[in-house]
Formats: sequence, structure tokens, C-alpha cells
Amino acid sequence: MPPPAIPEPAHAEVDSMLSRKFGKEIANYFAGSPLNRVSFLRTDNVFLSAALKHPSTSFLLFNNLAPLAKDSTQLEYVNFEDVRPLIGDDPYSKSEEQMIEEYNSTVTISQLLFLGLDEDKRSGFEWKSIYHGSPYFALDVTPKGSVSSAAEKLIETVKSRSLQFVEGRMHMSLPAPQAAIYAQARALLDWNARNPFCAGCGQPTLSINAGMKRTCPPKDMASVTEQSSIGSTTDAKPAKDRPDCVTRKGISNLCFPRTDPTVIMAVISADGERVLLGRQKRWPPHWYSTLAGFVEPAESVEEAVRREVWEESGVKLGRVVIHSTQPWPYPANLMIGAVGQCVPGGEEIILKHDPELEDAKWVNMAEVKEALEVGTSGLGEDPEPGYKEGGLRLPPRTAIANQLLTAVTGGFLEGAVTAPRI
Amino acid sequence: MPPPAIPEPAHAEVDSMLSRKFGKEIANYFAGSPLNRVSFLRTDNVFLSAALKHPSTSFLLFNNLAPLAKDSTQLEYVNFEDVRPLIGDDPYSKSEEQMIEEYNSTVTISQLLFLGLDEDKRSGFEWKSIYHGSPYFALDVTPKGSVSSAAEKLIETVKSRSLQFVEGRMHMSLPAPQAAIYAQARALLDWNARNPFCAGCGQPTLSINAGMKRTCPPKDMASVTEQSSIGSTTDAKPAKDRPDCVTRKGISNLCFPRTDPTVIMAVISADGERVLLGRQKRWPPHWYSTLAGFVEPAESVEEAVRREVWEESGVKLGRVVIHSTQPWPYPANLMIGAVGQCVPGGEEIILKHDPELEDAKWVNMAEVKEALEVGTSGLGEDPEPGYKEGGLRLPPRTAIANQLLTAVTGGFLEGAVTAPRI
Ligand SMILES: [Zn+2]
Ligand SMILES: [Zn+2]
Repeated sequence: MPPPAIPEPAHAEVDSMLSRKFGKEIANYFAGSPLNRVSFLRTDNVFLSAALKHPSTSFLLFNNLAPLAKDSTQLEYVNFEDVRPLIGDDPYSKSEEQMIEEYNSTVTISQLLFLGLDEDKRSGFEWKSIYHGSPYFALDVTPKGSVSSAAEKLIETVKSRSLQFVEGRMHMSLPAPQAAIYAQARALLDWNARNPFCAGCGQPTLSINAGMKRTCPPKDMASVTEQSSIGSTTDAKPAKDRPDCVTRKGISNLCFPRTDPTVIMAVISADGERVLLGRQKRWPPHWYSTLAGFVEPAESVEEAVRREVWEESGVKLGRVVIHSTQPWPYPANLMIGAVGQCVPGGEEIILKHDPELEDAKWVNMAEVKEALEVGTSGLGEDPEPGYKEGGLRLPPRTAIANQLLTAVTGGFLEGAVTAPRI
Repeated sequence: MPPPAIPEPAHAEVDSMLSRKFGKEIANYFAGSPLNRVSFLRTDNVFLSAALKHPSTSFLLFNNLAPLAKDSTQLEYVNFEDVRPLIGDDPYSKSEEQMIEEYNSTVTISQLLFLGLDEDKRSGFEWKSIYHGSPYFALDVTPKGSVSSAAEKLIETVKSRSLQFVEGRMHMSLPAPQAAIYAQARALLDWNARNPFCAGCGQPTLSINAGMKRTCPPKDMASVTEQSSIGSTTDAKPAKDRPDCVTRKGISNLCFPRTDPTVIMAVISADGERVLLGRQKRWPPHWYSTLAGFVEPAESVEEAVRREVWEESGVKLGRVVIHSTQPWPYPANLMIGAVGQCVPGGEEIILKHDPELEDAKWVNMAEVKEALEVGTSGLGEDPEPGYKEGGLRLPPRTAIANQLLTAVTGGFLEGAVTAPRI
């Protein structure tokens, strides 16, 4: 299967001072979404309700984080009539204030996300004559709690259309714009699923802001329904107050999705002629990549790059430059790609500090360049034709590691700025 | 008071291909820590115990997140004998496995953090003949639960030495290396304090990895102590099993500190002659800054910059370049500083999308340059001498916004690379 093309951002051809000095911007895989998130409309339930029910609206379904697709190269969407039996006639009929007021921890609600508007698809949906485009939503159809049977029925329906929920990371073969939509939906569904309880007080939370916030409601109607018969929750009995929670005072970061910044870096020797590569034990033979690690609290990216490289390989870096970034939805990373240069005499490799790598080594630029031509592939796949057994193998073009290595073997280090190999 | 000097990183003077092409690295305030975190030693309780008790070891105390200091320009540390009445003879006498095994949710433990080794201070502490330097710890002395009286006593003791717990953000006047130590300690104490419960299951969690991890123990001795008399917890009664939790299967990001990536950007017009600035309502008159916002899940930094600028100001950006980064410990941000250039014709300002800013405007380079000379100060402070009433005011040099504006009014946009003004 051919590797997916990574389209250049629409503005890439604009000649600007920045592009003349730094070259074209690299749009890494999982970035480059065609959707306008119009994030400020997520709290507006009247907007959400209109977008949800428009005939042009697309719903991407996930079962246990596996997306609905024709196959691993093509996502497939369903429409409002398809999902209606699971989510009801209008899950956005009430304001957020009302939803919080009527919160009942015993009721299961299938997680629904508003992803944004595809402005290139002028399908008749518009809002306040300003915002146009086809709306996109994602919906978690994993059977659970009180929605189990409706969810199972919906899963059967879509499977009868020769569609499937594709597991694993086969999504790496999606066209880039679809990959970006998938990444946004997966990251947010996963965050909601991982965080059903409030870390501040231990009580269950409620999804609001069309899936971009979880709030810790002050009351719970569960106490009312327990006391009265089902269906009579509209009687005058007040909902039970829940214990105090700090997240209800002001704005708390705990209520918003978590994204973990990580660093990934192409490291070059002091003389600029070699590149540092490392490998993990579980990788295929001859497979190497750039070093990487999590940014810690109160560290700059540049410090994290130097710390991780020293901890994993003993190599001492000087100047660090940030190259480009890549969202990584497994589960919620922001990969910040950098290029670092070794200080003179700092090249000695020491693996014993933090024994994360099985091996690390310095490789000549020419060998890296050749491997970028013939030795790249996904982790479970065969290298490209032309690869000679025993030669260096490297990550595919969809990985930022590949883009960083392409940069340092290309024009990035010299004055000349060249277009990236994509 | 003079603004704190921001020291250049030790390697800044190294002449390298990267520094020749991109100029010197900017070490923003709160970065530039003198400590080696030796993160791989945090799980080794024998190491932690030795470091804790060494006579050269420094403890930074916090009371409700306010650090112990002489005044707002100088942190002050205490030693092991000072903190011993609060933390006991050796809180690291047991392995993490043992601590998890003996977990008791009713016992309050003052949060202790290992920060790292100051390798420039060769004080006799060494580990395995490889790692040298004075150890640094931080300790939360906020009175609470079963440690209230010991904590209050310790607070009285240090206050009797003419020291104080400095509230607010006066820490911005600390020398840069101290600011970095403060930021690391504050960010981690705050994360531990904000997350006493597991977001996956709602049960209380236990701090391990010297403050860098919170785990959800499978058992709780609280049930044992409730049944038996105090002091007899060593009898044969088994601890009660707690309900299952997904965070106990494999590695979960929920167990590790959270850092929220944010973007902050100097935006220049298509012709490169003007800079976009915005202001919030609560700021002093004439005060402006760069635009900023949170990175969302599955967004690259470059996309987040374009989205935030369009949402807050209506301005449409093309090429985006990352300039430098700054940790920001209020409570846990990683500020990623970028420079973005407007596409031709994309300069129209529209504030109605997301009404976060009170105003946004294009300012000539010369005016920004002058304001960087005479109009900068902390938010609550007066501008520098030479400021003329009514002139543009900007953030101080400790803010990455200032460094970004300095870059775009300096050599960053042209081919020539000049040293930053620090
Ligand atoms: Zn809560
Ligand atoms: Zn748990």
C-alpha cells in the first residue's frame, strides 16, 4: 500500500519573510485538519442542536476507540437518522446550566463530540450568517449501562452495510485530512472515557462543552430516583447536594482535556557529520529511531531535550532548535520535534543512566540518507523495495522522527533552506 | 527593583551549526534550572534516603504553595534536622512496593519531592561514584490532617528566623536559577494537591516516585485500623481490597503530572512592518501583549497558533515558526512561543468570534521597539523611567511575550541572526 500523502497546508505556497528564512512549514501526520473547530460555539446548545440535525452532518462512530471505516484507508460516516435511536431526538435541547442542575449519576449518556465545520463543504449549513460548512460530530457507541441495547443495535446496523470498526493503529494509512479528524475524535473520546471521576473530590463528573469539558456537578438526582418510582423524577423532591469540590471554584485545569507534551529530537554531532539514533528492545532488527521522552513540569522544551538525551544516551547537547510538532492520539501526546547539536567532546554514549534503550549509536549522514530512501516502513511492515538485509531501518514518513531526520540530512543545518521530502 | 538577569545557558557560547543559523538559544525565565533531575533515581528509595539525610541537602518549604524566603528576591532553604519532626526519621525507609502494600487512606503524609542534584555544588554527596552534587528537596508544610500540629510548629520555627512564606507571584523577582527551582517545586506540589483522587475510579491515591507519580493502591489498611485499636495495625487482619481500577493495568498517563501546552505568538503583518497586539479588560490602561491560548487535543502547535489568532482577532496566519519555550507554574503550563505571519489580505481584525480580548490592534515595529525600551513592567508595577503617559505598555523581560516581541523587532525575521536583548 502506498504511504499516505501528507498535503501541504493551504498557506504553504505563500511567500513570506518567515518562509524565506525558515523554509516551508512541515505539516506532520495527524495535523492538517480540514475542520474549523469554532471552539467558542461549543457552549451554545442552540448552535449544537442545529448542527447536529442538519442533513449534511457527518457522525464518526467509535466502538471501544475503534473508528467505523470501509477499511484501514477510508473512514466512513453515518447521519443523524442513524444515531438518533442511541442519542435521542435532541441531546442538546437543554442548556448546560439545566443539564448540570438535572445531573443524575446513574444515567448513561453515550459520549458525543462536536468536532467542527468543514468549510470547504458548503452544504447549506450556516450559523448567524458567519460560520458555514458541513458539521462533524463523533459518537462513542461502545455498549454500556443503560444504552447497551441501543448501542448494540446501531453497531449491527452499520456492520450490515459492509463497514467495520477498525482496531489498532492501522489508521496510519488514512489520508492525512481523515487522520486529523480521527485523531481529534479519538483523543477526546479517550479523555472522556479515562476520566469518569473528579480527581479533586472523587465524585463522578458530567461531560459538557460538546465533549471538551467535564464538570463536577454540585447536586445528584440519583438520590431522587432511588427514593421514587422510575419516571416520576419530576416530583418536588430536591436532588441531594454532593460534597464540596475545589474544581467548582473558578476555573480548574482538571475540567479540561489533558495533552502531554513530549520531545523527540534529531541529534547531530558537534561536527555535524553524524546523527544519534537509538533502539528499543522490542523493535525489529536493524530498526532505529530518534530519541524521545516526556517533558516534565517546569521544564522548557529545550531543557527536556537535553535531559532526555543525556539520561538515555549520555550525550551532552548544546543548542536546541524546535523544528515542527505532531499531535499523537495514543492517548494524548503533543510531540514537539527538535534538532539538537552535541557540544564538542560530548559524544560519548553511556546507556547505564536510564536503561530505556537497548542500543544507541552515531550514524553517518550518508547512511541515514540512504535509509530514508529504502529502509522506512511502519513498525509491523516490510521495508521498501531496494532495502538490503542488514541495512539501517527507520520510521515511516508519517512519523515526525522521519521528518526530523529528513531535515538534518537535508538543508536544515546549512543556510540554504530546501523543501522537505514529502 | 532591577529586573532579574536571565543567564544564558552554559552552552550558549558554543559555536555550532545550529547557533550560526538560528542564533543563540533563549533561556526564558523559570527555565534554566541548575539541578540535574536524575529522574531515573526517583524510584530508588535507598538513593532517596541517602540524599534526604546528607548534611548538604536543602529543603524548600511551601505553605499553601507560598515558598519560604528571606524576601521576594531570595529563597531560603532549611536542613534535614529542621524537617525531621514533620516527616520522621526516614520517609524513604520502605520500597514503593511496601508503601503500596501498607497504604492507609486515613494517614496524612506531608508531600515531599526530590528535585535533583546541584552538580556545581560538590558537597561530598555522591551516588555509585557517578552522580555528584548537593541534593534538593521540596516539602509541603501546609497544616492538615494528622500532621497539623507538627506542621504548625515547623512554620513557627522558621518564622522565628525572620523568614516568611511569600504569597502571590512576587517570585518573578527571583534570580533565574532560583526561579527555576521554585517553579519545579511549585508545579509538582500543586499537581499532587489538586489530584488526591483517581480520575479513573474515584478512590484516593498515594504519592510515589519522590512526588512524580500518584498510584491507585489495590488495598487500603484503613479498614484494618477502623476495626482494631490504634497502634495495633500489625495484627494479622488483611487490608480490604479496593474496587478494580484501569490505571493499575499497564501504564496510565493519569498517574503522572499534567502539563498543559499553550501557545503564545508574536504575529506580524504580511509586509512584516506591523505587529498584532491584544489586551484583556482587567489590564492597566495602554497595556498590550501577544495573543495566547491552550493547545487542544490532536492539534499541532502551528495549527493551534493559527486557530487562536483567528478566534481571538479574526486575523489569518500563514507560516508559523516556533521560537522558544517557557515553563509557567501557574499551575502547570508549558508556553510554546511562536512567530506567525499574516497571509496577504488577512489583516482585518474581528473580535466577535471569541470575545476574549477587549481590543486588538496592529502596531508599527518602531512603536513596539520603543515600548520594549521604556514601557515594560510587571502587571502591578509602574513602567520604567522614560515612559511617557499614554504610550504603549508591554510585559517585562521575564515574560516570553517580551522575548517574542524583542525577536520580531530584532533580527529574527531577516537573514541576519542577532543575539537577543537580555
Ligand atoms: Zn469534584
Ligand atoms: Zn483508580
